[in-house]
Amino acid sequence: MISDLDKEMEKRDVQSLIVFGDQTLGNPDLAYVVGAPLPRGGIYLKRQGNKPTLVVSNIDVGSAKAGRVKSIKTYSDYGQEKIYSRYPRDDARAKFYMKMIKEEGIGGHTVIGGKNDSSNTLQLVDSLRKGGLNVVGEKSPTIIESVRETKDRFEIERLRRVGKRTCQVVKETTRFLRRATIRGSKAYYKSKPLKVGDVRRVIGGLLNENDLVAMEDTIFAPGRRSADPHYRGENEDLVRAGVPIVFDIFPSEPEGYWHDTTRTYVLGSPHRKVREMYDAVYEVQMNAVDMVKENAPCRELMLTACKLFESHGYPTARQLIKGNKEARVRGFIHSLGHGVGLTIGERPYLGLYGAERLREGAVVTIEPGLYDPKYGGVRIEDIMVVGSPSENLTSLDKDMEL
Amino acid sequence: MISDLDKEMEKRDVQSLIVFGDQTLGNPDLAYVVGAPLPRGGIYLKRQGNKPTLVVSNIDVGSAKAGRVKSIKTYSDYGQEKIYSRYPRDDARAKFYMKMIKEEGIGGHTVIGGKNDSSNTLQLVDSLRKGGLNVVGEKSPTIIESVRETKDRFEIERLRRVGKRTCQVVKETTRFLRRATIRGSKAYYKSKPLKVGDVRRVIGGLLNENDLVAMEDTIFAPGRRSADPHYRGENEDLVRAGVPIVFDIFPSEPEGYWHDTTRTYVLGSPHRKVREMYDAVYEVQMNAVDMVKENAPCRELMLTACKLFESHGYPTARQLIKGNKEARVRGFIHSLGHGVGLTIGERPYLGLYGAERLREGAVVTIEPGLYDPKYGGVRIEDIMVVGSPSENLTSLDKDMEL
Repeated sequence: MISDLDKEMEKRDVQSLIVFGDQTLGNPDLAYVVGAPLPRGGIYLKRQGNKPTLVVSNIDVGSAKAGRVKSIKTYSDYGQEKIYSRYPRDDARAKFYMKMIKEEGIGGHTVIGGKNDSSNTLQLVDSLRKGGLNVVGEKSPTIIESVRETKDRFEIERLRRVGKRTCQVVKETTRFLRRATIRGSKAYYKSKPLKVGDVRRVIGGLLNENDLVAMEDTIFAPGRRSADPHYRGENEDLVRAGVPIVFDIFPSEPEGYWHDTTRTYVLGSPHRKVREMYDAVYEVQMNAVDMVKENAPCRELMLTACKLFESHGYPTARQLIKGNKEARVRGFIHSLGHGVGLTIGERPYLGLYGAERLREGAVVTIEPGLYDPKYGGVRIEDIMVVGSPSENLTSLDKDMEL
Repeated sequence: MISDLDKEMEKRDVQSLIVFGDQTLGNPDLAYVVGAPLPRGGIYLKRQGNKPTLVVSNIDVGSAKAGRVKSIKTYSDYGQEKIYSRYPRDDARAKFYMKMIKEEGIGGHTVIGGKNDSSNTLQLVDSLRKGGLNVVGEKSPTIIESVRETKDRFEIERLRRVGKRTCQVVKETTRFLRRATIRGSKAYYKSKPLKVGDVRRVIGGLLNENDLVAMEDTIFAPGRRSADPHYRGENEDLVRAGVPIVFDIFPSEPEGYWHDTTRTYVLGSPHRKVREMYDAVYEVQMNAVDMVKENAPCRELMLTACKLFESHGYPTARQLIKGNKEARVRGFIHSLGHGVGLTIGERPYLGLYGAERLREGAVVTIEPGLYDPKYGGVRIEDIMVVGSPSENLTSLDKDMEL
């Protein structure tokens, strides 16, 4: 969490930190240290042990004040206009940075972070190095990556809120699905065959109404093609009865925190094999949810899920690396989960590799699934906050039959 | 356009180009050179005058083949697994890059592009420099920025498609608005007061149905608060009759091209002042659309818009820099337009600065507006492709009254 920033800088012998970007959208490290959306971005400067300064344009002072940095300055405070009127753009930028760096006492091993154009940023770094600043690159995980891995209570409150809203969307979507009329293997809505496009329209409206943004398409995948965990479902696909429907939704608040949840539903009655798959996924998911505790090794959670699936006769990803090629398309063919916060995929990762342990305040998905090209996919996903006790942010039933 | 890449590299004495990223989403330069979405990203390598190579993971070969690079290789082709099993992650990465660089003949002045974590990328660049690669930073506009500024016919075709879909959403939303019942200054839908949230729900459904993503919230701002060009409209805001409603929608196809259009509507009859503002914006917008021609100086378009507004007695942004502080909140208080493509804001910029001229194939918004804290805002925005003749991608009426 952000309060670990100084400790983490000290641990790595980094004396100064600069994070910048031309917007906070799509720049999670900048969004994180600022703590509020900045439509035109800004420059965050911090010396180890000192309070940070955030520099923004005059019109963004109000936006900046909504964030967590107390000391807000403007580009004008460092004479930006004068510098930019005298030199070409990139030279002016370097001179402007040198001025801020001097005035803010930035020095020593200095990290320059933020998600930015690599080539133009290197131009800046080379200029600053020439000017005498000791800019150092970082191995992964970087300081901010590491700090972002655990969430403080303010972040958890926001994650709770986006969780509630997302669950609201799922609940209202199931309410809509229940209004379908089933005849044999077919589902009808207002006497027309129900299509994925109809459901998408409902989901889109609900997301918007709940002030949620889905940057990547929601997965609403009915039938056999859901055996591909990344198949999103085409608008023209029929929503049939008796087959699994994988509904994986991962929206965020505008420029905010994400949620990520999956439920698998069947309209009418499922095939016996699908029911068996569902029962196994349910068992593994509930078991993994129970294992989410501080200090639990991430790899251990994944391995336990694999073993449990294997005990029911399903191939798993860990067999794939041992040469079982069937596990490429059938069984539990992906990882158990990943971190969620200002992005939809971040540390920690609950996969087969890595010796990390779950830290208090980490927020992870628990999303085992089973896939079979003959029958389709089944996946159940909740988001957990690691704590004492751990907290499930996804308050949705786990019934397959609607 | 992409076919200018070699020419642009030659002009700047850059012999090699590497573009990388862990996904194409949010990494427009990588998305551009690849020409297709890559969920796990990839590494693009090109030597001046040679065809590029794209390196992806085994499972993404199919996705990569949908793009424009003919030579697709996998990480395994360069022995990734072996290297990563022997060295820690970041050392392994540097060694892996050195292997690719050697095998692909990358050398000379080398640019490393893509939107990536600045600090971790610097770590890679420093390692490659140590290994003998001459990595150079670029001033802005970078090679790819410059190449991306003009669109080829394939890109224009995609921009046309997203334009059509966006206009469809606007048309259907106005159809919904027309169903409102007006009583005095109030608008009702199904006998309840019409709120922005009701309209957002409709817009969200329509976006989803048309396979469009709105990463940032649509602006649907009724009444006086629309005098702030960035006010988005809260769900609880009432949609009243007689006041301007600024409807600015800027969606993209998933991982694709963007559209950006604004219309200003009034339910019922507008105030005389709003009608006058609308007439002025309409005149300026139509005039600017006519000025969109190859070689037209960007600054000239902006200045002409300012002059025309001033001739009607409205303050403008160019007066602000001359000290007219009123132009901060009243009048034409922003720029005329900006480029659109794989991002919603890119070169060229139609503002008060910069000596660039419109190039053939550039795609720009033309979006003059007038704002008055007493009455609200009025803005009309189309997207134009610079050509002979130039093409308007926004086929929507420009009537204020619904």
